[in-house]
Amino acid sequence: MATSDPSLDPARAPGRIAAPPPSSPDGAVAGPLVGATTENAVLSRILPLFQQGAAALLGPGDDAAIVASPDGRTVISMDTLVEDHDFRLVRPNGFRTTGYDVGWKSAAQNLSDINAMGGSATSLVVSLTLPPQTPVDWVEDCARGLAAAIRGLGAAGCSVVGGDLGAGAQLVITAAVTGTLGGRAPVLRSGARPGHLVAVTGMLGRAAAGLAILEDGRPVQDFGPLGEDLVAAQLRPLPPLTAGPAAADAGASAMLDISDGLVRDAGRIATASGVHLDLDPEALLDHADPLRPVARLLGVDPMEWVLGGGEDHGLLATFPQDVLLPPGFTAVGSVRPGSPLVTLASQATALRGWDHFAH
Amino acid sequence: MATSDPSLDPARAPGRIAAPPPSSPDGAVAGPLVGATTENAVLSRILPLFQQGAAALLGPGDDAAIVASPDGRTVISMDTLVEDHDFRLVRPNGFRTTGYDVGWKSAAQNLSDINAMGGSATSLVVSLTLPPQTPVDWVEDCARGLAAAIRGLGAAGCSVVGGDLGAGAQLVITAAVTGTLGGRAPVLRSGARPGHLVAVTGMLGRAAAGLAILEDGRPVQDFGPLGEDLVAAQLRPLPPLTAGPAAADAGASAMLDISDGLVRDAGRIATASGVHLDLDPEALLDHADPLRPVARLLGVDPMEWVLGGGEDHGLLATFPQDVLLPPGFTAVGSVRPGSPLVTLASQATALRGWDHFAH
Repeated sequence: MATSDPSLDPARAPGRIAAPPPSSPDGAVAGPLVGATTENAVLSRILPLFQQGAAALLGPGDDAAIVASPDGRTVISMDTLVEDHDFRLVRPNGFRTTGYDVGWKSAAQNLSDINAMGGSATSLVVSLTLPPQTPVDWVEDCARGLAAAIRGLGAAGCSVVGGDLGAGAQLVITAAVTGTLGGRAPVLRSGARPGHLVAVTGMLGRAAAGLAILEDGRPVQDFGPLGEDLVAAQLRPLPPLTAGPAAADAGASAMLDISDGLVRDAGRIATASGVHLDLDPEALLDHADPLRPVARLLGVDPMEWVLGGGEDHGLLATFPQDVLLPPGFTAVGSVRPGSPLVTLASQATALRGWDHFAH
Repeated sequence: MATSDPSLDPARAPGRIAAPPPSSPDGAVAGPLVGATTENAVLSRILPLFQQGAAALLGPGDDAAIVASPDGRTVISMDTLVEDHDFRLVRPNGFRTTGYDVGWKSAAQNLSDINAMGGSATSLVVSLTLPPQTPVDWVEDCARGLAAAIRGLGAAGCSVVGGDLGAGAQLVITAAVTGTLGGRAPVLRSGARPGHLVAVTGMLGRAAAGLAILEDGRPVQDFGPLGEDLVAAQLRPLPPLTAGPAAADAGASAMLDISDGLVRDAGRIATASGVHLDLDPEALLDHADPLRPVARLLGVDPMEWVLGGGEDHGLLATFPQDVLLPPGFTAVGSVRPGSPLVTLASQATALRGWDHFAH
């Protein structure tokens, strides 16, 4: 993540929290609005920000782009962020989500899906639906966030190769991502077998804790430097893009990215593999304990964030027991025979995680 | 287009106009709404409709899908349709756009982009943003439209391999499409040279005429069978998916699909190639004349639809003069030296076509 360009630093949160840029689309801004300009004028602002990566054989500007697929296969996924559902431009405490944040998160969640298959991303195509009152500066900031996430997360060779710009009542950003498996077999959700270890990358519950801070009425600063870090984890997640291919090479039997919460995502492996995943509460305490100072201020049990919080975009994987876990993975449970089920020290857990319609 | 399944027939318009299905999301419907069910319940309704094509090496159900890229390259594009901007669920005359229509159009406009490069589509990923009051039946109808367009337009080997479902204030459908060039060089917008012929596929202005009918206050039936055909051309366009690869094989020097109007799209070739495109009004009259009965009822000059109307998704291409035009193409002009410009019998034309923000 070392870089000389501060716009590529995902941890540049505190300054931005203290002084939100003048580009937030809440009306209190200078500069032209999308509705008062043309598609071409907006494109001329953002296309130069997308330096083309090595996998881009033909970049933006024609009816379609062309991307290298060196092993004859293309991994593809798609994720959407919708204003007031997946992000809020202005929070009750006055906190503003910037275009940069939204662009970063869109790229990160898409790149994470390729990582979760054991692949490396090769391109993004991005559709932006923009209310007329969106400042063009906000759109440019969003494009900067997309480009910064690709570079900052280390998605070498990947770039934004195309997309679509249009008008709508609500900000919506949809990205599709392509990737290559580099000759590997993909790691699916269905390969977990009894006796395998369950492991995760990184720390769980941080993005959920950040969301809880944003939804609280108090200023982010009241939660101290840890609070600001957790908010950054929510706004600009850091999927570990080398861990997916490394897990595939190490022999991971099943894998996905934790986007909807550990229990719910573990349930997906349990269902696809036809196994029972038992999680170890002792191991998960290591994830919950660092969150306690903030959890105390909010009056919640941090284990709820660890078990039910999504959006960190770490990986959840299973490995045969004789495998040496690749760097960055720690064991959090084991696979047992039995009907698809997720338990915590053999006990049922009621936590379900995120459903886009039910919540 | 011959098929035994009536749901695959894009011309099934009249019956549907007379009796809109009970699935339009205007509240006056039976059946469960998206907001009263779960993401999984909706997925279980629509995923079985996406029979996997030969290019799908791994279909929906994991973090990402895998698509064959036989020549080591993947063509990729993306297009979005937004409620009240790109379609209206209910028109002033009471006409309802169905989920089937929206799904068909989303697939068609994306498949067309691959066609315009000289390629063949291999997969679609589709993101649906759905207001809570959307009937699940509407979503299923949309999925049927997507699947029907892929089959009905002859996109052999292509299928919907993944996507995203989420909630929002407005219906938004974004599809990304992948394709293969089958070893060919792509046909770009930049290869037109003085002396080349300008040619188009199909008939121009039909979708624009259909839109004018929909925006008129009178019932569609008042415009007779021609009116119903033109409305079908607007709602369920028929991009000629064999014409793109055929044009590439025949030596087309530049190509794009006519999505924003002949003059505007010709301007894109003129700009990218650094040439002057002169259109032949005599040739274009052949496109305008069949539209006259409807144009007369609406009090407009049908040449406006021919020159400025998009959404037919036919191809506009240039060919060296010694090339025998492939089947389906007819000459409509010629390429001249000079600054980027589009003229009609050497005269300037004010028509600009569609801009997503300026209109």
